[in-house]
Amino acid sequence: MILFQIVKKSKKSRARLGLLETEHGVVETPSLVPVATQAVIKTLSSEEVLLTKSQILIANTFHLHLKPGEKFVKQAGKLHKFMNWHRPIMTDSAGFQIFSLGFGSDLQVGKVTKYFEERETKKIITKNSQPKSVKITPDGVFFRSPLDGKQLFIGPKESMKIQQDLGADIIFAFDECTSPFSSPAYIKEALKRTHKWAKICLETKKSSQAMFGIVQGSKYRDLRHQSAKLINSLPFDGFGIGGDLGDSKQTMENILDWTIPYLSERKPRHLLGIGYLEDMENIIKGGIDLFDCTVPTHYGRRGIAFTSSGKLNIKQSKFLTDKNPLDEKCDCMVCQNYRRNYICHLVRAGEMTAMKFLTLHNLYYFNTFVERIREKIKEGKI
Amino acid sequence: MILFQIVKKSKKSRARLGLLETEHGVVETPSLVPVATQAVIKTLSSEEVLLTKSQILIANTFHLHLKPGEKFVKQAGKLHKFMNWHRPIMTDSAGFQIFSLGFGSDLQVGKVTKYFEERETKKIITKNSQPKSVKITPDGVFFRSPLDGKQLFIGPKESMKIQQDLGADIIFAFDECTSPFSSPAYIKEALKRTHKWAKICLETKKSSQAMFGIVQGSKYRDLRHQSAKLINSLPFDGFGIGGDLGDSKQTMENILDWTIPYLSERKPRHLLGIGYLEDMENIIKGGIDLFDCTVPTHYGRRGIAFTSSGKLNIKQSKFLTDKNPLDEKCDCMVCQNYRRNYICHLVRAGEMTAMKFLTLHNLYYFNTFVERIREKIKEGKI
Repeated sequence: MILFQIVKKSKKSRARLGLLETEHGVVETPSLVPVATQAVIKTLSSEEVLLTKSQILIANTFHLHLKPGEKFVKQAGKLHKFMNWHRPIMTDSAGFQIFSLGFGSDLQVGKVTKYFEERETKKIITKNSQPKSVKITPDGVFFRSPLDGKQLFIGPKESMKIQQDLGADIIFAFDECTSPFSSPAYIKEALKRTHKWAKICLETKKSSQAMFGIVQGSKYRDLRHQSAKLINSLPFDGFGIGGDLGDSKQTMENILDWTIPYLSERKPRHLLGIGYLEDMENIIKGGIDLFDCTVPTHYGRRGIAFTSSGKLNIKQSKFLTDKNPLDEKCDCMVCQNYRRNYICHLVRAGEMTAMKFLTLHNLYYFNTFVERIREKIKEGKI
Repeated sequence: MILFQIVKKSKKSRARLGLLETEHGVVETPSLVPVATQAVIKTLSSEEVLLTKSQILIANTFHLHLKPGEKFVKQAGKLHKFMNWHRPIMTDSAGFQIFSLGFGSDLQVGKVTKYFEERETKKIITKNSQPKSVKITPDGVFFRSPLDGKQLFIGPKESMKIQQDLGADIIFAFDECTSPFSSPAYIKEALKRTHKWAKICLETKKSSQAMFGIVQGSKYRDLRHQSAKLINSLPFDGFGIGGDLGDSKQTMENILDWTIPYLSERKPRHLLGIGYLEDMENIIKGGIDLFDCTVPTHYGRRGIAFTSSGKLNIKQSKFLTDKNPLDEKCDCMVCQNYRRNYICHLVRAGEMTAMKFLTLHNLYYFNTFVERIREKIKEGKI
């Protein structure tokens, strides 16, 4: 059960301010959704996550199915109780993992291709292709557990069962996330599966959890149109925009232009697995309310701080004599208490405390960044 | 500058309650001194260390000399400011590292030999022996940096310089910590060096930091007597009892019996690098006021929780269904907020947050354990 209230609509773009009410509290949108893959924001406690202004987290259905297994999370009283996070939680559909274990792994690519050249030289995935290590069927996907090699199967029914046991406030329909190297014919086939699975998810779900349907269709205008219309026609509580988002920021914007106008304005829209700092304002102007992103946490664990004067590689020895906080303009717990010299020492000495400081700061920085975008919408600036 | 006030002396043992006043606050003794090797309690922030009831920390002179280098700590405003810990801090003398890099590394032993058999079969370190990778001279020790192989030298003067730059409240005189496999003749020689270096440290130190002299002498009654008398005759602010503590708990008690009666009662006594939970009451009854110990933090990072019902290996799958806190009787932040099922999942999933939870809990548990021993002394029970 969610209620989504639009507080203000921009006159300059598709941006809007919203309030997303769940049984575990309200999310002011647009909002970043930090990624708690294994039911934890790596390096932090849930109490520390609260200090980062995070409003809602997304946990990973695929990973939690493998470890510890949804039955343990259910037995513990479901995700909120398990991880002592009493604010809203989402779980993804596990669909992205098909892609990662399948063609994504075969071709060593992510969701966004960096270089056009790469696209030219990679083998194209044609109709009826199968990736090496997973087998896609009309009912779902067979794959080998990365933990012990055992054969496993997840389809729409299984995804619903797992996500109900995990007990997030918002769950996602099971989809196939296609590779940037798929041929249009392959993508059409995959889209048929995604749409069929969307309906099965709606028929299967018994819980009162809210469910978002996922729009796919790669970088093809007609397929995105078709997918948006179909998903919009189904009784979902919101939308995910997933899959291959093209090879440039322009394509990403195009995809939003081809999709958002076909989706009911009254329902929240989540852009899946994106959110570089420089993308945020654009995707929000494109009409996105929620977006998950591993950048602040992933970079934090690798010694990178996001600051109002750009990204800093805190491992560089020049910071050993720097008495400034990570960001002078930041009010986070780390910037209030620690200086670059100490954090630089901790990174260079391989101390986990450094990763935790950078994760905490980066999340606070990203959340504050989105907070300011909300203010800009309020003030009619974007 | 420290002031040490004895609040109560036991009539049943040498245990005493004390107040150790420093410029950064008061330590109630007896007290555990958690180990912040690289100027951090691994996995925690200083704010979290405060939640563990820790009163005073010990940082490592040798490690901080190598990384980041004392000049950076000094430039940052010395240790308290550097690590944002505004309570008392000690630094050790770097002497133990001679042992670790030298004979300790050659023979693969720590300070306490576990099996008498081992002692029989190991090569004995005889008079005029030199370990492979360090060179001990009358003025100090040449060794190769474990970081880059560069030759370095630390003697009593260098140790004083480094410890003054680090700026702890209490520092230790530079000593040679002998191996359990040293012959009595070797230990006599080493003891001469330690005593000579103690005097040089007193002559060299210019700061107002308190300094403890270190009693050595291995497991030999006459050498411990001799060392205790000599160190007691010098104007130190307190005492460290260091070195090889024998191969049994009985020997450790003997060493305290041979040492403590020769040390001025008015000065605090620190047992270096020991503190298994089961040893604590005995060493306190033996007259020890302070002791550093890596057990709670080291075991925590390896998935072990200390609890009122014994040590638990939280990684065991049986804990995945256990809804109890780590210890039902514990009031720490972790036990108030998290259950064994979640922490078990985090350990099994390789999440750093688990190490941090276990470190925090274990330190709280150890500090509470010592708190109860203080109460027992107050109540005249030990």
